Amino acid sequence: MSEIFSSPADLPTAVLLVIGNEILSGRTQDQHIPYFAKRLNAWGIRLSEVRVVPDVAEKIAATVNACRGDCSYLFTTGGIGPTHDDITAAAIGCAFERPLVRNPEAVAILKAHYGPEALNEARLAMADMPSGARLILNPVSQVPGFQLENVFVLPGPPLVLQAMLEGVKDRLAGGVPVQARTVSAELGEGILASGLAEIQARYETLEIGSYPHFRQGRLGASIVLRGTEGTTLDEGFAEVVQLFEALGGLPVEEPAD
Amino acid sequence: MSEIFSSPADLPTAVLLVIGNEILSGRTQDQHIPYFAKRLNAWGIRLSEVRVVPDVAEKIAATVNACRGDCSYLFTTGGIGPTHDDITAAAIGCAFERPLVRNPEAVAILKAHYGPEALNEARLAMADMPSGARLILNPVSQVPGFQLENVFVLPGPPLVLQAMLEGVKDRLAGGVPVQARTVSAELGEGILASGLAEIQARYETLEIGSYPHFRQGRLGASIVLRGTEGTTLDEGFAEVVQLFEALGGLPVEEPAD
Repeated sequence: MSEIFSSPADLPTAVLLVIGNEILSGRTQDQHIPYFAKRLNAWGIRLSEVRVVPDVAEKIAATVNACRGDCSYLFTTGGIGPTHDDITAAAIGCAFERPLVRNPEAVAILKAHYGPEALNEARLAMADMPSGARLILNPVSQVPGFQLENVFVLPGPPLVLQAMLEGVKDRLAGGVPVQARTVSAELGEGILASGLAEIQARYETLEIGSYPHFRQGRLGASIVLRGTEGTTLDEGFAEVVQLFEALGGLPVEEPAD
Repeated sequence: MSEIFSSPADLPTAVLLVIGNEILSGRTQDQHIPYFAKRLNAWGIRLSEVRVVPDVAEKIAATVNACRGDCSYLFTTGGIGPTHDDITAAAIGCAFERPLVRNPEAVAILKAHYGPEALNEARLAMADMPSGARLILNPVSQVPGFQLENVFVLPGPPLVLQAMLEGVKDRLAGGVPVQARTVSAELGEGILASGLAEIQARYETLEIGSYPHFRQGRLGASIVLRGTEGTTLDEGFAEVVQLFEALGGLPVEEPAD
């Protein structure tokens, strides 16, 4: 079934590590997950897992080490600013057992951005990164992130993060993007289940998901088919449409995403 | 610093495990994280981590076993419907090494809901749960979830999930809710950093977070103070307001959440 997409042999994979008390408190609605999911998929990289952890260095370090060996790329978001709660660089240093060093290239960028008057110690400390880190440039607010092996350390504010993610695209090896088609009808999932399972069994390279919905007082289901091969996707889609029709439903294609 | 909230000794903790290819593909925007965060906090339970994993039984089982010993409560969402991609019950059975058995109470509920005509095998299979599972009733669409030790298995559709979460409130032992106050000003984080670090150092029981923002073309920062003790929270808040004023900013209190 969906296990077909679980192997890194199929597509490069990414884990997203969202560092943020503000997400775990409910104060801030996450915007990173759908953005990474879609952008990485366009580059042929599958988002295989997301973790959201608090601003606790030991937890961040343990999570980085638990995840970085199991994915092609690990992206972290948040905690690289100048305040006391910005502990990501130190946590990544712990994870890799590398000391923090002041990166001269980052210092030069910060000097040019803030000017000598405003460049205090808190701001300079944003140039402290684990030894061996490679800068990720920040075209919006200049404060750089960094890459260490397959770990990419990015900031929390979405617009800044998104601009920086574009900048590392050339460092990522992608595969074939997953395409999707979605069809819905006013049929209960329980009526569709056996026919849908048969279609899934015949299309091993497709991932077929069923999502119930309740619209204008009527129960229905949306079937999402995903795969890397367009012809197979269209064939599977046609079979789901036929199944809907055979069960007396009126299938409607929906936007895939 | 924020480590003060990391110990289960302080407050009961919860991990949220979102099971869903639709979240990892970017098709669906997660609504569970902020809901759980706020609702659990109202009950005195701290959301300590979130994981989003695909519809892969081995991954679900491994994640349940990695997390359930480190938190007071583990909540899973998604994958308990009648279709082939609903594999959560089987995965939880694997995690606990318990066979799936057809729960007679669940069968009775499904019989009453669907009637003998519409109760096919796919729908009946929704009554299959790991042995020893305790039902979680579903006041919306009847299909029950279940609890096994400290693991609560809930569905994906937000309105159904939310109704069922209310139903298990009495099974959860809560602590003291965390309160929050937020103040913002048009001051750069780098200017605030050293003063803010001093306040954090003096208020060990408060978690003080700093979040930059860019509004109407002007850079600023929102400072969020969180703690379980109102008087201390108000004292810390007053100190941040004083810091803002001393630095020439105009502090404005914002809604906490």
